[in-house]
Amino acid sequence: MADNKAMTTRAQDFSAWYNELIMKAELADYSPVRGCMVIRPNGYAIWEQMQGALDRMFKDTGHQNAYFPLFIPQSFLAKEAEHVEGFAPETAVVTHGGGKELEEPLVIRPTSETIIYAMFSKWIQSWRDLPLLMNQWCNVVRWELRTRLFLRTTEFLWQEGHTAHATEAEAEAETLMILGLYRRFAEEWMAMPVLTGRKTDSEKFAGALRTYAIEALMQDKKGLQAGTSHNLGQNFAKAFDVTFQTADGGLDHVWSTSWGVSTRLVGALIMTHGDDNGLVCPPRLAQWQVVIVPIWKTEEERSRVAETAERLSAELKSAGLRVHIDLRDMKPGAKYYEWEGRGVPLRLELGPRDLANQSVMLARRTGGPKEPVPMAGLGQRLVAESEAMQGAMLESARARREAASLRGPKSKAEFIEFLKGDGGFVYAGFCGDPAVETEIKEQTKATIRVIPDEEFRSAEAPTTCIWTGRPAVCEAVWAKAY
Amino acid sequence: MADNKAMTTRAQDFSAWYNELIMKAELADYSPVRGCMVIRPNGYAIWEQMQGALDRMFKDTGHQNAYFPLFIPQSFLAKEAEHVEGFAPETAVVTHGGGKELEEPLVIRPTSETIIYAMFSKWIQSWRDLPLLMNQWCNVVRWELRTRLFLRTTEFLWQEGHTAHATEAEAEAETLMILGLYRRFAEEWMAMPVLTGRKTDSEKFAGALRTYAIEALMQDKKGLQAGTSHNLGQNFAKAFDVTFQTADGGLDHVWSTSWGVSTRLVGALIMTHGDDNGLVCPPRLAQWQVVIVPIWKTEEERSRVAETAERLSAELKSAGLRVHIDLRDMKPGAKYYEWEGRGVPLRLELGPRDLANQSVMLARRTGGPKEPVPMAGLGQRLVAESEAMQGAMLESARARREAASLRGPKSKAEFIEFLKGDGGFVYAGFCGDPAVETEIKEQTKATIRVIPDEEFRSAEAPTTCIWTGRPAVCEAVWAKAY
Repeated sequence: MADNKAMTTRAQDFSAWYNELIMKAELADYSPVRGCMVIRPNGYAIWEQMQGALDRMFKDTGHQNAYFPLFIPQSFLAKEAEHVEGFAPETAVVTHGGGKELEEPLVIRPTSETIIYAMFSKWIQSWRDLPLLMNQWCNVVRWELRTRLFLRTTEFLWQEGHTAHATEAEAEAETLMILGLYRRFAEEWMAMPVLTGRKTDSEKFAGALRTYAIEALMQDKKGLQAGTSHNLGQNFAKAFDVTFQTADGGLDHVWSTSWGVSTRLVGALIMTHGDDNGLVCPPRLAQWQVVIVPIWKTEEERSRVAETAERLSAELKSAGLRVHIDLRDMKPGAKYYEWEGRGVPLRLELGPRDLANQSVMLARRTGGPKEPVPMAGLGQRLVAESEAMQGAMLESARARREAASLRGPKSKAEFIEFLKGDGGFVYAGFCGDPAVETEIKEQTKATIRVIPDEEFRSAEAPTTCIWTGRPAVCEAVWAKAY
Repeated sequence: MADNKAMTTRAQDFSAWYNELIMKAELADYSPVRGCMVIRPNGYAIWEQMQGALDRMFKDTGHQNAYFPLFIPQSFLAKEAEHVEGFAPETAVVTHGGGKELEEPLVIRPTSETIIYAMFSKWIQSWRDLPLLMNQWCNVVRWELRTRLFLRTTEFLWQEGHTAHATEAEAEAETLMILGLYRRFAEEWMAMPVLTGRKTDSEKFAGALRTYAIEALMQDKKGLQAGTSHNLGQNFAKAFDVTFQTADGGLDHVWSTSWGVSTRLVGALIMTHGDDNGLVCPPRLAQWQVVIVPIWKTEEERSRVAETAERLSAELKSAGLRVHIDLRDMKPGAKYYEWEGRGVPLRLELGPRDLANQSVMLARRTGGPKEPVPMAGLGQRLVAESEAMQGAMLESARARREAASLRGPKSKAEFIEFLKGDGGFVYAGFCGDPAVETEIKEQTKATIRVIPDEEFRSAEAPTTCIWTGRPAVCEAVWAKAY
């Protein structure tokens, strides 16, 4: 049971607020295993909605699900030089199985490129076998030192797409198509605006040619990488000898991509929309979009309101809404408090007086006064309410992000001041030197989140590097980040 | 690509047939990791259909999904005496994480009772928190020495339900409700008839009070345990101190259950329905229930048949069918062969002549002559075909099982002869002595699959034990099994 103490507010301590919200809404819990969390039903239901939406998007674009082993022979990881350097330090290693020491230790997958390309080399012979478009929903393990619920856990759930193509151009097109798909998902489902763009070499995936990402800004003005899409070039194909006969009879290595989003998105959703009363869930991802709370004093009243609640629920369901009736033997106020904490978008209160008026009392999780709404046409009305809320949440998150963004600081001092103050996204010119990236990170704790895609670039392209004054090779977006 | 060599037949070598079918239909593949398989898209699609149906059944009966850690501290496994004895010998153990040796090794979950009850003890305080009805879809690892694709792999996918109740009666009711749910799933979705009943103590789950199972008979007349439901009594509650305040103010340990089915069901489906040409998939679980194979010679023909195929496909989809159009540039015969191997229930061939006749040529995976079917009303017709096939597959599997069952052998000699011959289910009296079970197993390789529920018992209850001649305490069903 959630307790009824007031939460720490976002303004007081954002990090404490985040943890308390997760406990209050029963989204997740700490487990007895270091760095691993338990995803409780309220949190898992959000992940299931996310999975459902993403899975349809993947399938609509021709991808098929498969399942590859949890274990990866240690030697496989070593086949791609950058990859092993990036992942080996954070692996969990199985050394014993069935009571015996293994000849070769097995790594728990931190990501599955290596085991998947070993299979691709078996399955791909000819250009006719391409493109090969696969996705896998699974758990992965990265031995993180500092963990945070949903955001960074030793084990997490994710999807990882892996595709192989005949040409570099097709691989690049796939990488960017998925980036767009992730953006659409973030904006249309999570109501979370994102920047899209490319990562610098120091921030790219270990083994990739190029990494693209969607980047969001949380309410504490820290950036969060919400999804990545990698063009792997022929790196893994060469390491695992994935070759194919070309249409004109030659032999070439395939061009491949990989891309993923994880349960981290649940954390992103919390930090994008949550308020000081708890979770605020965008309607499209809510387990229940509508909760009906019947109010009664006598048994006779209970049976009357329950009956009407059932009828309304059936009506709302047939309008396509996910509805729950809360008939528990508890005070209505305690129920309101609980559903509010859990982020249910629309709450209907239904007592004997409402029955008499043929109306229900509507409360919106995003605020505003309660309002009586006629029972007639309720389905249509709540679908509209739900859609309006979804849109308004995206717009308000976008406005918040823009208010916390600084374009074209006049000077290095202003750039530093911004990052050392409240922070947010700062757009400025960059000379392209990795040493400068490192220096900025050391002095401000900010990293380049993305080299933004055209749509997000400033109207006037910066001509000089904000740090060195040298000519800028691009505009970059910096922020402190999760 | 599937190759076109004829498969080994079931009669020649059932086991070779099984493996070849899986390769031909591209359901799974061997991986570079000992005992682990890759589930390829064709196989995974069946698992997804199974998951979808089961998940709806679990949710309709009040269960919620959650996710618990992959890792279990080694000491947790040891808390329930029978449990550790049953599972410790087959665990995979992580000894190193993040480059360091762990203080306490972590076991990869072989099943999650121990980690889940550790959490239940935190979440359950009062009778108001009960029943707690949870389910988890995940991977588990058991270090098996002899593995078979789908049937027994080191890592496999499954669901595990875990519930806690206030009384023994409620826990028993849940255990049996789930047993019934599994039976309904097996029969209505997999078209696979099963016996339900109780396991003997020597076959029960390590740590359970009572284990119930659904048991199917494969085409080679071997039994296969297809799902289990365990009444765990208070064993785990006591080991993990899961107590609750009772309604009358006392304190008691909860009564709990666990239950699961796994990707083994895909193997069961193959061995129940497959034929010498490949997989035969029951329509309700098929990724594609209908495949349309357009036939053309000229480009003009191609565009005409493709257009009609699209129109028909849209019609069939709106009738609720899952449809795929195969427009690949391959000979139609090669396509027929491939879809047959993959088990697609209904195939429509569509050429220029069919267009002229306003009909399509229908081929059923379960056999019989091809038949022209009018385009008008095709959706309704194929829904009916699909339902009829689903029913007929169940009935034919049931008839096969009954033909391979022997009730009430006259003598121990007949009992032995049956089991040493072709085999099947043999129903006979049992004295209840575990030593007799062991002796029978040693001499015939058969085990008691279940002590059958009333519905499956012979009209005349056996009075003596088929092995010892002592009074029978029950009727039991023996078979050699997977």
